[in-house]
Amino acid sequence: MMKRLSTTQIDFQPQLADLLAFETAQNPQVDADVAAILQAVRQRGDAALLEYTRRFDGLEAADMAALTLQPAELLAAYQRLAPVQREALEAAADRVRRYHQRQLQASWQYTEEDGTVLGQAVTPLDRVGLYVPGGKASYPSSVLMNAIPAKVAGVAEIIMVVPTPRGERNDLVLAAAHIAGVDRVYTLGGAQAVAALAYGTATIPQVDKITGPGNQYVAAAKRAVFGVVGIDMVAGPSEILVICDGQTDPDWVAMDLFSQAEHDEIAQSILLCPDAAYLTQVAESMARLLPGMPRQDIIRASLANRGALIQVRDLAEAAEIANQIAPEHLELSVADPWALQAQIRHAGAIFLGRYASEALGDYCAGPNHVLPTSRTARFASPLGVYDFQKRSSLIYVSAAGAQTLGRIASTLAHGEGLQAHALSAEYRLQEGC
Amino acid sequence: MMKRLSTTQIDFQPQLADLLAFETAQNPQVDADVAAILQAVRQRGDAALLEYTRRFDGLEAADMAALTLQPAELLAAYQRLAPVQREALEAAADRVRRYHQRQLQASWQYTEEDGTVLGQAVTPLDRVGLYVPGGKASYPSSVLMNAIPAKVAGVAEIIMVVPTPRGERNDLVLAAAHIAGVDRVYTLGGAQAVAALAYGTATIPQVDKITGPGNQYVAAAKRAVFGVVGIDMVAGPSEILVICDGQTDPDWVAMDLFSQAEHDEIAQSILLCPDAAYLTQVAESMARLLPGMPRQDIIRASLANRGALIQVRDLAEAAEIANQIAPEHLELSVADPWALQAQIRHAGAIFLGRYASEALGDYCAGPNHVLPTSRTARFASPLGVYDFQKRSSLIYVSAAGAQTLGRIASTLAHGEGLQAHALSAEYRLQEGC
Repeated sequence: MMKRLSTTQIDFQPQLADLLAFETAQNPQVDADVAAILQAVRQRGDAALLEYTRRFDGLEAADMAALTLQPAELLAAYQRLAPVQREALEAAADRVRRYHQRQLQASWQYTEEDGTVLGQAVTPLDRVGLYVPGGKASYPSSVLMNAIPAKVAGVAEIIMVVPTPRGERNDLVLAAAHIAGVDRVYTLGGAQAVAALAYGTATIPQVDKITGPGNQYVAAAKRAVFGVVGIDMVAGPSEILVICDGQTDPDWVAMDLFSQAEHDEIAQSILLCPDAAYLTQVAESMARLLPGMPRQDIIRASLANRGALIQVRDLAEAAEIANQIAPEHLELSVADPWALQAQIRHAGAIFLGRYASEALGDYCAGPNHVLPTSRTARFASPLGVYDFQKRSSLIYVSAAGAQTLGRIASTLAHGEGLQAHALSAEYRLQEGC
Repeated sequence: MMKRLSTTQIDFQPQLADLLAFETAQNPQVDADVAAILQAVRQRGDAALLEYTRRFDGLEAADMAALTLQPAELLAAYQRLAPVQREALEAAADRVRRYHQRQLQASWQYTEEDGTVLGQAVTPLDRVGLYVPGGKASYPSSVLMNAIPAKVAGVAEIIMVVPTPRGERNDLVLAAAHIAGVDRVYTLGGAQAVAALAYGTATIPQVDKITGPGNQYVAAAKRAVFGVVGIDMVAGPSEILVICDGQTDPDWVAMDLFSQAEHDEIAQSILLCPDAAYLTQVAESMARLLPGMPRQDIIRASLANRGALIQVRDLAEAAEIANQIAPEHLELSVADPWALQAQIRHAGAIFLGRYASEALGDYCAGPNHVLPTSRTARFASPLGVYDFQKRSSLIYVSAAGAQTLGRIASTLAHGEGLQAHALSAEYRLQEGC
């Protein structure tokens, strides 16, 4: 079912490169369609939104009020949930909130001897847009993971858009919005929803940043409006890399690999282990467990397309490969996970110990499940409170400070041929200090 | 020379919107040219770099060694500088380094009652590419402002590219690279240099992030490789907004407005003041001072195209307008700048007090001069050490913790129809805890 590799193969590196290769080529037709939609919403506002919602979501709405969900409707969805689901959502939200409160950054400043004060003011964004996909990929956990960090940051207003094809609403998603404190919800989706958030319409106010996953039209629209508003990362397919010392129950590891594979035919599940016999055991577990899985077709395709069981020389080599892959999710299912973690430079989330399955992190451990994919953990971070705060430099210059700084600035400005810069510094030297 | 507006005009808001309107439309021809260059460098590596450098920079090089500057050459450039310039660069670098050290973020974690440990590991990027423009816009201060935060973050290797049209090198830029601790320099520019950094060639190693300003080809190339590598913001034209209470020497404020205007015909300089007579005084200062400015043609065009003197009702209204503009640079040239600063939510850098001219911040106050433009201060921050660090979530789950978390995760996973996720959590419940 899955490719077997070994780092001792002479062609291991090219094999690994093949395995990881994933071209996120943009589709020119999608880009052109999206450009037309953005333009239409920008020019015709709500009228264009109503048209596209009719055309793409099969949803007839007389006016924008019909596409607006009131707080009472979110509350009603919450109240309709079975108590066990409501409690699970509340418990997850509490843990996510508590973890993210640790990420809050504060303003800081310091005063120099001559009275000059330097620092940074840290402030929340005013208004954020949260895109939530409709249909099967409509996940309440995503609502929590996007909205809670924004709330913790102090964002004054969170506007959620979620398509409801033919009017189908997802109570779990609406309940999650209620719990997370989303301020307004519009039943809009696709590039038109992104356009509405980015440019604003008569009904929908312009936001400062748009986060949340979506299909290729949503991704292309987010790329296109980047700069007008902030966006989170454009996510690639989900990935898990498990490093195991061969001592974890093989069924556990098999199911962890499945849990990634069940997302998508192009999701990636890779296991690294120094013990060849253990890799065989995991393969046997997978063969035995697969027929019992409701999503077995997706799992089988994903593992066949992009999965691998890789024998490594030792755990140190496994850590090196993990750094090369920079995986979205990394499980360290070994006896001393902290020693191994110390060797990891690049990963979105690191799950330590045999009990830390990725699924716990996806839902309720506390850290965010929006993570950098496709090797972007080399330079990007999990979604966090810091994505909903921004900084302004603070520069108070005393009269005495202007004498010291002015001389340096003047010299450098003349060196760059910027005489107004130089003079503006020199004017402040006139005090005879 | 400059438009005069007042907030009491009935059409003030549309006038302001006109003033701020700036379409950063991407040019399809530039995008197509850039796509071809990226493709060529990706496929043919160094050979393509040598061809493009010959064609675009008029620089004939037999091999990549001829486009590589050795550390000794940076040192020699540094030694050739006049002592006053060398000292000014060193002093600026010291202050920038000291300020940025305050931005360093550390890893953190906490342990819950049941032994579960959560946190984030903060690590530097491995390797960063710094783009420095050639010719007239080749600024040594930019080298310091980009390279020093990366060094402070702990980036192991900084690779700088700077075009040297017809072989012309800028000693100040190379000396700044020496002072900032740049590790390697290649005399390459344009989209081809961005491609080399993003994809790597036989000579040039792939980097994890590319920062630094450039022309429209460089900007388009950075946009295109975003995702393969990280990038900083794609910057728009530079802007200054001055709020003055009418008590600062009008020549000082006039020169501050000039210092922004001299960058570019599309740079923007705006002054807000409640005192109409003072606005007239500043206008008179500008008329008197302009003929003495070496870059007067650029200044005149910039002020005529995009500048404005705006009379406001009071300073509170000025703060509101500043929040709406979200300027790159904001000077608070007033008696109590801290009281006014408390009303500012969005700005790249805030200069407080009559002595804090923007030029001091551009060169040597300490904070970064790479700042969010075109209203992006609503969601973006100055370049900083945090742009060269990234985070990995840490999730250690104890056996006891897996019992609590597993039940929540299982319920939510079933609610989302992801059974492998649910089972992977449920397997860890087998202990009978």
